[in-house]
Amino acid sequence: MRQITLDEAASLLKEHDKFRLLTHSYPDGDTLGCAFALCFALRKMGKLCNIAIDGKLPSKFSYLAKNYREQDFAFEYVVSVDVAAMQLLSDSVMEGVDHIDLCLDHHRTNSIEADHIYVDADAAAAAEIIYQLLSLLEVEPDEDIAAGIYTGVSTDTGCFVYSNTTPRTHAIAAAVMPYCSWVEINNINFVLKTRAKVKMERMIYDTMEFYAGGACAIVYTTLAMQEALGAGDDEMEGLASIPRQIEGVKMGITMREKEGGVFKISVRTNEGIDAAQFCKQFGGGGHPAASGCSIEGSLGDVKLKLIEAAEAFL
Amino acid sequence: MRQITLDEAASLLKEHDKFRLLTHSYPDGDTLGCAFALCFALRKMGKLCNIAIDGKLPSKFSYLAKNYREQDFAFEYVVSVDVAAMQLLSDSVMEGVDHIDLCLDHHRTNSIEADHIYVDADAAAAAEIIYQLLSLLEVEPDEDIAAGIYTGVSTDTGCFVYSNTTPRTHAIAAAVMPYCSWVEINNINFVLKTRAKVKMERMIYDTMEFYAGGACAIVYTTLAMQEALGAGDDEMEGLASIPRQIEGVKMGITMREKEGGVFKISVRTNEGIDAAQFCKQFGGGGHPAASGCSIEGSLGDVKLKLIEAAEAFL
Repeated sequence: MRQITLDEAASLLKEHDKFRLLTHSYPDGDTLGCAFALCFALRKMGKLCNIAIDGKLPSKFSYLAKNYREQDFAFEYVVSVDVAAMQLLSDSVMEGVDHIDLCLDHHRTNSIEADHIYVDADAAAAAEIIYQLLSLLEVEPDEDIAAGIYTGVSTDTGCFVYSNTTPRTHAIAAAVMPYCSWVEINNINFVLKTRAKVKMERMIYDTMEFYAGGACAIVYTTLAMQEALGAGDDEMEGLASIPRQIEGVKMGITMREKEGGVFKISVRTNEGIDAAQFCKQFGGGGHPAASGCSIEGSLGDVKLKLIEAAEAFL
Repeated sequence: MRQITLDEAASLLKEHDKFRLLTHSYPDGDTLGCAFALCFALRKMGKLCNIAIDGKLPSKFSYLAKNYREQDFAFEYVVSVDVAAMQLLSDSVMEGVDHIDLCLDHHRTNSIEADHIYVDADAAAAAEIIYQLLSLLEVEPDEDIAAGIYTGVSTDTGCFVYSNTTPRTHAIAAAVMPYCSWVEINNINFVLKTRAKVKMERMIYDTMEFYAGGACAIVYTTLAMQEALGAGDDEMEGLASIPRQIEGVKMGITMREKEGGVFKISVRTNEGIDAAQFCKQFGGGGHPAASGCSIEGSLGDVKLKLIEAAEAFL
């Protein structure tokens, strides 16, 4: 296991020919954007490459795969993209994989076990790393590659809103925009809402409670609420950002009931409050401003645990 | 009245010393960002400059003016920034102004009467023009100037979401970010909501109706609704974007009741549907994707007029 430079990462990619790219569970725009951009780049170089995704590609991201068909070959080199920890690699993604050759990531807390690791924690999105690799690999962006890069950098920054955005993020967006339908990508990821989603948002606001003198807001969704609205996973996207948007709130917590008596918890915080540290006490992690964990229990019990932890933490 | 180049505009600014900058009614982030950025730049060059605003500076934009104090002098050169038409200049803004010397704008429909006019309709925000002027005026950005530029480009593009964004917009954001508190600016303009605003949004969703087979969504606020929530002008900002966000909607219309039996109408449209053209039939105008007008009458009458016009238009 060795930390390497970007140049070394590029050399490793050049040296190999049969790739499998691994994406993290609950795949988001960055892990998928990275995988499709890198896959199309490697294929453009004449290499074979497939992508492993946990479950089906979320329908909102289907535009990333419009020119993607699975190739038939036995992979020899495994690369994880935007994956922070081994437990974020599902059994189906790890099928046939005995070890990871190269890890490309931007999570400061990265703990992937791989032969070679390149982590750039200053990158707002792992897609920034993929973009920088393109020139080292001497691959010109095309529509598919650009759509992946743009999707990664825009979704991981809330479309250039969040504090992780840097001048480099904007420069990369500017560079790939001419090649892809970024207006459509923005519409899909940041503008359009289904009527079911609007109803879900309104229902979520009904659950909002404030603690720690208004510094913590907590909301929840249950399976029953989701069923009542006929809301699919697409409608549940982005709900995590709601509680922290309220003026005065420094920590926003979203509890989402999943099958099997477990709640998926998303935590969003203002500068100076470490969401990853907060989630660590429940076995989770992520970024300082956006982290998550899973807690088993009833709605009331899990909520109480979170409120007590939040009041102690703030 | 003469169309001039950016270089000529810079020369005119260099040649004069006592400025008054005019901003448009219902001042937004672009007209205010332009005015403060240009004002601080001209003052840095040793010139005298004041800004004319219709009414009070909206409190959310108070950060633009933290180092601004009115100067005591008689102005000799009048510049309008981001003002598309004479009727957008209120009596208070035009006090003591007998003519406009220079118009700097990015509205394709610009109809300002001025001695010299520079319009760049490819600029996502008029602030892009002000940024380009900086290097011609040999002024380095500082915090105040950068905050104005960033505010202009970010607010006029919905933080780089809308189709008017270009690679240049991103490049300008990248260039000014290091000088200003852009995270705070984004929080103010794109993230934070007061509890009153959340309530207002929910109330607005209750008024939403669909026409033209779901292609047109219309919502309204009344003075009574606003009073019931204790919502100020800040809470009313940004509501115009709500109806067009619903999947399938190509034209979103927001009606806002103002004092004196008049409704302020905001129209937001998808590509290919000209909002400015639609608003023109009611004496209004703006951009192809975002325009406005005012219509007198009762809630029911004004709504009916708009629905009929929208169904004919779509």
